[in-house]
Amino acid sequence: MRVSELFLPEVRDALKTDPVAIRELVEEIHPADTAEIFLGLSEEEQLIFLKALPLTPQVEILEELDDDLRADLVEKLAPEMAVKLVAEMSADERADLFHELPAQLAAKILGKLSKDDARDLRSLLAWPEGTAGALMTTDYVELEAEMSVAEAIERIREVAEDVETIYYAYAVSPEGSLRGVVSLRALVLSKPDKSIADLMDTEHLVTVHGGADQSEVTQAIAKYDLLAVPVVDDAGRLLGIITVDDTIDAAEEDNTEEVQRMSGVAPLEDSYLKAGFFQMIRSRGICLVLLFLGEMLTGNVMSQFEETLQSVIALVFFMPLIISAGGNTGSQSAGLLIRALALGEVVPKDTLAVAGREVASGIVLGVILAAIGAVRVLFWPDLNGQVALVVGLSLICVVVFAALMGGLMPIAVKKVGFDPAVASTPLVATLVDIVGLLLYCLIAQAILSGGGAS
Amino acid sequence: MRVSELFLPEVRDALKTDPVAIRELVEEIHPADTAEIFLGLSEEEQLIFLKALPLTPQVEILEELDDDLRADLVEKLAPEMAVKLVAEMSADERADLFHELPAQLAAKILGKLSKDDARDLRSLLAWPEGTAGALMTTDYVELEAEMSVAEAIERIREVAEDVETIYYAYAVSPEGSLRGVVSLRALVLSKPDKSIADLMDTEHLVTVHGGADQSEVTQAIAKYDLLAVPVVDDAGRLLGIITVDDTIDAAEEDNTEEVQRMSGVAPLEDSYLKAGFFQMIRSRGICLVLLFLGEMLTGNVMSQFEETLQSVIALVFFMPLIISAGGNTGSQSAGLLIRALALGEVVPKDTLAVAGREVASGIVLGVILAAIGAVRVLFWPDLNGQVALVVGLSLICVVVFAALMGGLMPIAVKKVGFDPAVASTPLVATLVDIVGLLLYCLIAQAILSGGGAS
Repeated sequence: MRVSELFLPEVRDALKTDPVAIRELVEEIHPADTAEIFLGLSEEEQLIFLKALPLTPQVEILEELDDDLRADLVEKLAPEMAVKLVAEMSADERADLFHELPAQLAAKILGKLSKDDARDLRSLLAWPEGTAGALMTTDYVELEAEMSVAEAIERIREVAEDVETIYYAYAVSPEGSLRGVVSLRALVLSKPDKSIADLMDTEHLVTVHGGADQSEVTQAIAKYDLLAVPVVDDAGRLLGIITVDDTIDAAEEDNTEEVQRMSGVAPLEDSYLKAGFFQMIRSRGICLVLLFLGEMLTGNVMSQFEETLQSVIALVFFMPLIISAGGNTGSQSAGLLIRALALGEVVPKDTLAVAGREVASGIVLGVILAAIGAVRVLFWPDLNGQVALVVGLSLICVVVFAALMGGLMPIAVKKVGFDPAVASTPLVATLVDIVGLLLYCLIAQAILSGGGAS
Repeated sequence: MRVSELFLPEVRDALKTDPVAIRELVEEIHPADTAEIFLGLSEEEQLIFLKALPLTPQVEILEELDDDLRADLVEKLAPEMAVKLVAEMSADERADLFHELPAQLAAKILGKLSKDDARDLRSLLAWPEGTAGALMTTDYVELEAEMSVAEAIERIREVAEDVETIYYAYAVSPEGSLRGVVSLRALVLSKPDKSIADLMDTEHLVTVHGGADQSEVTQAIAKYDLLAVPVVDDAGRLLGIITVDDTIDAAEEDNTEEVQRMSGVAPLEDSYLKAGFFQMIRSRGICLVLLFLGEMLTGNVMSQFEETLQSVIALVFFMPLIISAGGNTGSQSAGLLIRALALGEVVPKDTLAVAGREVASGIVLGVILAAIGAVRVLFWPDLNGQVALVVGLSLICVVVFAALMGGLMPIAVKKVGFDPAVASTPLVATLVDIVGLLLYCLIAQAILSGGGAS
């Protein structure tokens, strides 16, 4: 049972009678759980709940909510309260909120922020969604390399309340260039009079560029086991940092989008049960209709071979078997490649190696299925070896084609700049259906055209 | 370009002439990059490289390698060197290694470890793979609640070299029960004479049970933005901790397995390009053959309706269209639900809500496709309204069935204890093909049985 379900009845009671009890309860539990309780309340209750709390937990709740829910809530608040809350938010969460706010309200709140906050906010908003710049925060510990360890720890204590993490501190030159990174671990383990310059990492610093894709950030943090990664511009100036917890959230979102694209669904903005019905229909419908129009070509293909099919109707009985074998093989190859590309295990220059692997796999798998298929045909009443040959040969051709197509489509899609997951199973299957049926009919016509076969 | 590709030529040169240069190079770069360079070397070069290094970087390389590569390497080392390296590894990495070592070698090395290390190792090895217990390490900072902050920091300095993280410290009772958690942040920001008991979190501590699935660990760390989570037994005794970097690696593995299962591939142990050819064939072949055998039923279904199909051969032309519309819809539903289950957004008690949502979506999507399909039939030469009715009705029925099946299968698979991703697109598509064709043929027979239709 979730913490929130445990507390919800108690909170509902307290809302009517005793707002102080709410304050006490919220002190005891984690903001993530408070946010869950909050989401379980009605709109009216949410506002009473929020007003019963001091500023800090108010902001914590706001920061835990999803971007769109957060924007909805801020729109409903009285303008003074909205400004007060937004001013207290961390820089990165504030920027995420502004991406969702109506322009008028955003401008109004922006005008009320401190000069520094407003400048930071503008610089964060300049980065497109999905980039490191959009994910970073400007709330980090900045040191000078000339400081001693004791001075650095003093600085960390002063700014701790306002930064995203104190576990890494960044030494910056007067021009704003990142000179080195020092961990709180190193500071605590070192003598107090040692200089930061002697302690900090300077060589081969792991950094990401503001314009880098957020998946690059995840890969850097995962590879080097970091708690945060600094974001820099072309000139090496420190722009902000991205902490591991934000990376985890971003990676989870990326994975969800990948799986949804792979399944032929345009990524949903909300979770499955919360997404609006018509949003869901649109996300699915556009893709389904496009695939449906493409699949119509299968009818045109088959009608060209009406005579052959009519004369040996049994050919029709094996049609779904052949196209589904192709579809399944293509789905396997596409899934393997989409994932390998996402992990950086395969890069576009591996195209030839992938093609070789898929053709070889396709031949082996195709021959196995062809053998099974041909045997099945031979056990079918009144069918002869010619039909078995048609089915077997078609299976080999279709499976090899599907493996190659499934393997190369994600790479091609990536090369032209889209998410490889767009080369979804449904898309691959549709192409394989059309080409597969054409191959099947051509092979059938070539082999059976001589004499009647059934 | 990867760091490793940059350095590889230099390393190769140094291997032949100047082992000291290798030592210097390795000091400059991150162990993750050293491991990549290492992997680029031949087997023979790897051993020379390793022997050129001091113990610490040797162990770091070993810890960065994948489990199976690591085991291969240890098997190739001289027994004394293997023991020395294994003794220095962190507890969790050592346990991962032992899962892969041949029993004889494992027993031999185990006998040479210190008593404490051997006991920890045995307790870690007892947990099945994929559980929190198998992921945790026993190398953490243990405090007594009665300590002062200054004493705690002193303790942390003493043990820092041997623990996985110093950013959290765990207060444990004499019986081994977890009493509270305190962060290095709290210690650094607090007065030195304050008591740990006053500082540590005790209420609603986030912990996971040793037997919990590793996806629960990821969810806890992601939800509460933790750097590590403590693992406890039934009695609340602290067994170990899991750090965020290990969670990220585990989550990445889980995601890869999810995508591969969804695509109808048994999870590969290695990356796409490194997996052995026959391992790949087995991973794909078993699934393909099983689906192929299932799909054969489509032939049996159709042969029951041979007469109807023969008399209106145009029915055949729309067959792939109808089953692919079902397959695509089922793939969408399965993908959405597999992901929603993995994120905990949908739990089994939501089954009815999911069924309602999928039937409603299926009806709307089915009607849209049916309208397009029926129009296409009417524009087909020589086909009448009856065939349009057959195609339209079938599309609605098949799409609704596919949506429902795709939505419920992942939940059902989870209920019986398997990974929901086993309810893969290929599996759903195969079931939808069989039922879809049956529906199509039945509807065709019912509507067309009266008179000739073409």
